[in-house]
Amino acid sequence: MKIDVYFTPLGVKEEDLAGRGVVVIDVLRATTTIVTALANGAKAVVPAASSEEAVRLTANLEKNGILLAGERKALKIEGFQLGNSPREMTPEVVAGKTIFLSTTNGTPALVAAQGGTPVLVGAAVNFSALAERARAVFTARGDLAIVCAGREKQFALEDAYTAGRLIKAVKKGVPPKQLSLNDAANVALELTARYKNWLEALQLCDAARQLAEVDLAADVAFCAKADRFAAVPVYADRRIT
Amino acid sequence: MKIDVYFTPLGVKEEDLAGRGVVVIDVLRATTTIVTALANGAKAVVPAASSEEAVRLTANLEKNGILLAGERKALKIEGFQLGNSPREMTPEVVAGKTIFLSTTNGTPALVAAQGGTPVLVGAAVNFSALAERARAVFTARGDLAIVCAGREKQFALEDAYTAGRLIKAVKKGVPPKQLSLNDAANVALELTARYKNWLEALQLCDAARQLAEVDLAADVAFCAKADRFAAVPVYADRRIT
Repeated sequence: MKIDVYFTPLGVKEEDLAGRGVVVIDVLRATTTIVTALANGAKAVVPAASSEEAVRLTANLEKNGILLAGERKALKIEGFQLGNSPREMTPEVVAGKTIFLSTTNGTPALVAAQGGTPVLVGAAVNFSALAERARAVFTARGDLAIVCAGREKQFALEDAYTAGRLIKAVKKGVPPKQLSLNDAANVALELTARYKNWLEALQLCDAARQLAEVDLAADVAFCAKADRFAAVPVYADRRIT
Repeated sequence: MKIDVYFTPLGVKEEDLAGRGVVVIDVLRATTTIVTALANGAKAVVPAASSEEAVRLTANLEKNGILLAGERKALKIEGFQLGNSPREMTPEVVAGKTIFLSTTNGTPALVAAQGGTPVLVGAAVNFSALAERARAVFTARGDLAIVCAGREKQFALEDAYTAGRLIKAVKKGVPPKQLSLNDAANVALELTARYKNWLEALQLCDAARQLAEVDLAADVAFCAKADRFAAVPVYADRRIT
């Protein structure tokens, strides 16, 4: 049985993920935001590879059923209704809407993973539900891939820690000799012994520092709280539902 | 004072490294091979981004002063005199020669790092000398970047472990509060507590498994032995000397 972790989507080839069960993680903040939006009643989230693509995809759509959301350098994109903060995704704002989302790290990771079946969207906020679902996929297939979004095309601690927590939950009961982990998966698993929970891991990471600098430290606290939601969004046919 | 680690050269922008002190690490095997060749009397090593580039660079040169070396999928490239095994770089073979080297992971990392000043080439086989030299750069500048080659565009444990060892050596005496590490540097440092030496780290990694499959396990043992050489090669003007 095999679990592979990719610390960033860079260098991940289509054939690395095609047909595999894939979990995409961007704790700070894209996958937290997506889980929150869908748990709060959004109809779907459509990841766009860039803000231009998000605008293009919505050009001929009825404005009233959609929202443009996204960030560049952690801040809301000009002309978009929402940023990439999970705290903006309240039921009042998102219920019934389709959200077109463009972010620096998370949406490129989702786009890179789209050949997986299924592609599950995970974060701390839906961790227990995610782990249960991912474990079912892993048990059935004997295989799982975890794609971390990373940060600015580099390794991000919070995503790797979450990948490690997920491996730990998913592999339970599998004899070590039957389990093959790639180098990144082994290191992700090590991190679970190092940090006691998401709050600790998230407070020490580069992305949290950057968010604090632009007065978004409250987002870090939001993203660090495990199991706010039981939704496990699935990405298929270019939509997350 | 600041140390950044990049687990692969992918996504590293020219401006991330320009003018910084940079250490490039590809323990299995390119930087081990380069250190060995130069310690054994090679005149210079020229990293080529591809085998085609290596052939092109040597097209008009006197054949008798040069050697073409490199691998694809761990095996010697057809028509090249040498593979990428440090055990091939004996004094009899390499003394006085300029080696044009093309490898899957290591030479792209060197090419990506070429804007650094200096760019030091490191591995376990020259670790103590490397650490002393890198510490001098770090102390003078308050800054250091470490570029790991990784493996097939992904994270490689052996390079990250070596980066961690290097951080540990370089930061000695710096008060924690004055030291800023990026996420990858923090994780690399963690790994030094997990593996007691290179042999242990190298035996568990994906790259060692791949080498064993093609009957190159002896290379892993060679690469794992620290401090065989005191040479710290420097990459400048497209040549390593």
